[in-house]
Amino acid sequence: MRRKSFEHAACPVARSLDVLGDWWTLLIVRNALHGATRFTDFQQNLGMAKNILSARLQQLVSDGVFETRPSPERADRQEYHLTDKGRRLQVVLLALRQWGEDHLFAEGEEMTELVDKESGEAPARLEVISKEGRPLGPDGLEVRTGARRLPAKHRRSSGLARQPEPKE
Amino acid sequence: MRRKSFEHAACPVARSLDVLGDWWTLLIVRNALHGATRFTDFQQNLGMAKNILSARLQQLVSDGVFETRPSPERADRQEYHLTDKGRRLQVVLLALRQWGEDHLFAEGEEMTELVDKESGEAPARLEVISKEGRPLGPDGLEVRTGARRLPAKHRRSSGLARQPEPKE
Repeated sequence: MRRKSFEHAACPVARSLDVLGDWWTLLIVRNALHGATRFTDFQQNLGMAKNILSARLQQLVSDGVFETRPSPERADRQEYHLTDKGRRLQVVLLALRQWGEDHLFAEGEEMTELVDKESGEAPARLEVISKEGRPLGPDGLEVRTGARRLPAKHRRSSGLARQPEPKE
Repeated sequence: MRRKSFEHAACPVARSLDVLGDWWTLLIVRNALHGATRFTDFQQNLGMAKNILSARLQQLVSDGVFETRPSPERADRQEYHLTDKGRRLQVVLLALRQWGEDHLFAEGEEMTELVDKESGEAPARLEVISKEGRPLGPDGLEVRTGARRLPAKHRRSSGLARQPEPKE
């Protein structure tokens, strides 16, 4: 099925899916977050056909999710590294993981676990809450049209204003 | 391309993508979170071919993401309502939205905005943090194999232990 492009949609969800909508894409990103950098690592772990993997990686490089670097071992080969934009998909993958953990496993069924190396515990649960910490269900939210994207520093500082302080 | 099934994968991300991997699926869920219930609402908003929409909705009902109810207006028609499992995809959509807002719009470009009805503000930013609030980058996390899914109440209570208290 030829897919419709949402590259210019006004909805950020639609645009993200335009980049990530292929079901392989987030699994490639998942493996990269866990340290995979070589074509053969992705290929073996995912069991993807080489031509499909190659096309997906090229697309992800052109979308700015990955960047290529020459391999330190063999200069004629390249490695695939997540850009900052790519690393920020970590939160999307965690949301998918937590939903899957909750809803797609029978009790006692084996699953992989994502843990904080320092504490050995799972990361905190992602929740849709207001900046004051009030839980927001679907009925508590609405979509408005016509906003304009602000420069990054404005969005980021307002978005982070009430997050818990890091404890180092 | 025929897709490989990850229905029985041990990785919760892979299982979630097995259910959600079709790029239309999360847009259907997005519209349902914003109140769409009728076939024609989804069809008109998404501009999807009717046969594809019908197949996707049937699959989502069989996956327990939607349930059907008779239409209050016309008993021979049915409406599609998100189940609790389906509503919990809200956090996945918010993660996709925030990534899209940050990375896929040029400054000043028009975008839809998701706001808390009460305050008119965007929801708090989703962040990957430890239960103590420490930011966790990809290098701070590792995947372990061989865990077993625990009964829901255990997972949920431990996962929520350090979330901000709701202020009502």
